[in-house]
Amino acid sequence: MPNEQFEHISRSYEEQLKKLREMVARMGGLAERQVADAAYALIRRDTELAGEVIGRDGEIDQLERDIENFCVRLLALRQPVASDLRFVIAAMKVSNAIERIGDYARNCAKRAVVISQQPQIGGFQGFQYMSQLVQQNLKEAIDSLVNQDAAAAERVWAADASVDEVYNGIFRELLTHMMEDARNITAATHLLFVAKNYERIGDHATNIAETVFYAVRGGALPEERPKGDTSPFAVVRPPV
Amino acid sequence: MPNEQFEHISRSYEEQLKKLREMVARMGGLAERQVADAAYALIRRDTELAGEVIGRDGEIDQLERDIENFCVRLLALRQPVASDLRFVIAAMKVSNAIERIGDYARNCAKRAVVISQQPQIGGFQGFQYMSQLVQQNLKEAIDSLVNQDAAAAERVWAADASVDEVYNGIFRELLTHMMEDARNITAATHLLFVAKNYERIGDHATNIAETVFYAVRGGALPEERPKGDTSPFAVVRPPV
Repeated sequence: MPNEQFEHISRSYEEQLKKLREMVARMGGLAERQVADAAYALIRRDTELAGEVIGRDGEIDQLERDIENFCVRLLALRQPVASDLRFVIAAMKVSNAIERIGDYARNCAKRAVVISQQPQIGGFQGFQYMSQLVQQNLKEAIDSLVNQDAAAAERVWAADASVDEVYNGIFRELLTHMMEDARNITAATHLLFVAKNYERIGDHATNIAETVFYAVRGGALPEERPKGDTSPFAVVRPPV
Repeated sequence: MPNEQFEHISRSYEEQLKKLREMVARMGGLAERQVADAAYALIRRDTELAGEVIGRDGEIDQLERDIENFCVRLLALRQPVASDLRFVIAAMKVSNAIERIGDYARNCAKRAVVISQQPQIGGFQGFQYMSQLVQQNLKEAIDSLVNQDAAAAERVWAADASVDEVYNGIFRELLTHMMEDARNITAATHLLFVAKNYERIGDHATNIAETVFYAVRGGALPEERPKGDTSPFAVVRPPV
């Protein structure tokens, strides 16, 4: 009964691809939660929550290793081709990007601990907004992989410009706080890096979307994404 | 003559793996040069060189795409297994890390332009040293991939601690400059991000070394690398 046997192999192969999708979705969900909790910890000056975020990062790292091992086994034993091959490669690349996102969330949490012990400067609205934006982009990017939806991936790819815009505003505001009062400098410096972390999380969500687009359509997005981060060129003058 | 034909296929397969090694080596060399030139541009206040670094980043991005396409073709047509499969996966992961390193070098070059227009604060010895350290680590990490040398990869993996140490020193020094004179804040902020970029380049060199170790030995490095960056917890007080 070679036909029946083939169907069995084929079904099990489909199940393995499904399992891979679930692993990536789970890893993405964990990273979203880390990003959200790191922002809560900052905004509410909740050092206990910050500690939890730092402690949970190992789970994400482990999932990356699990996904890579799973993909290597799948490539060796199933030798997928065409869109399946592209999907397996994409899953590895995406898990690598999610691992980096986890690192940025952990770094935000570490800085939230220091910031909580410093005088408060300004509100955290910009941070809250930025965190929500990148969580949304991350969620949609992972969903686009799980659903193999190139159009959704393309939307995420375009959405990153607004993250950059918020980041540029925060950057200038923090420099102004520093110039007004030297006692703000420690907190503002850590906040600058927190904002930069969110901007990079947004970048990684965009990269995930690009990877998904390539995997589904078999061709890269046509041009360089319009990059809106002008902060590397920013100059702020001290008050006279 | 099936034997002769097999030898032909086998030779051509070896040649393809060799070509892949050469592509990664070339990409790594380009990234090393970008890191070096970005540091020169900063130290010598050479905005023309900074512009060249910014302009050259596209070459690195293109090489990443070329390597990925090459690997996908190799996986689909040759269906490598065991150590060859791990090498192809490693080549893709490494090219992804080099692409990020290129982005960090470009970001350093952008900031070098702004810094050159600001009052000079302190010397650039720490930056020069940090840039040389990460270039060295990057070069050795790429060499370890090309030579499939797990012992060399392990040495790079351990060397990153000294990069973190220099970074922590620069971080505290820059915060002190900011507190002493508000006119230093713009330059010092950009320099903070430059230093952070070098630290992240060092991280990526370490990740490359880890990937190589895994690819050659077929197992990950046993434990979390001792992480020496304490700056997320740093507090500096303004002068009274």
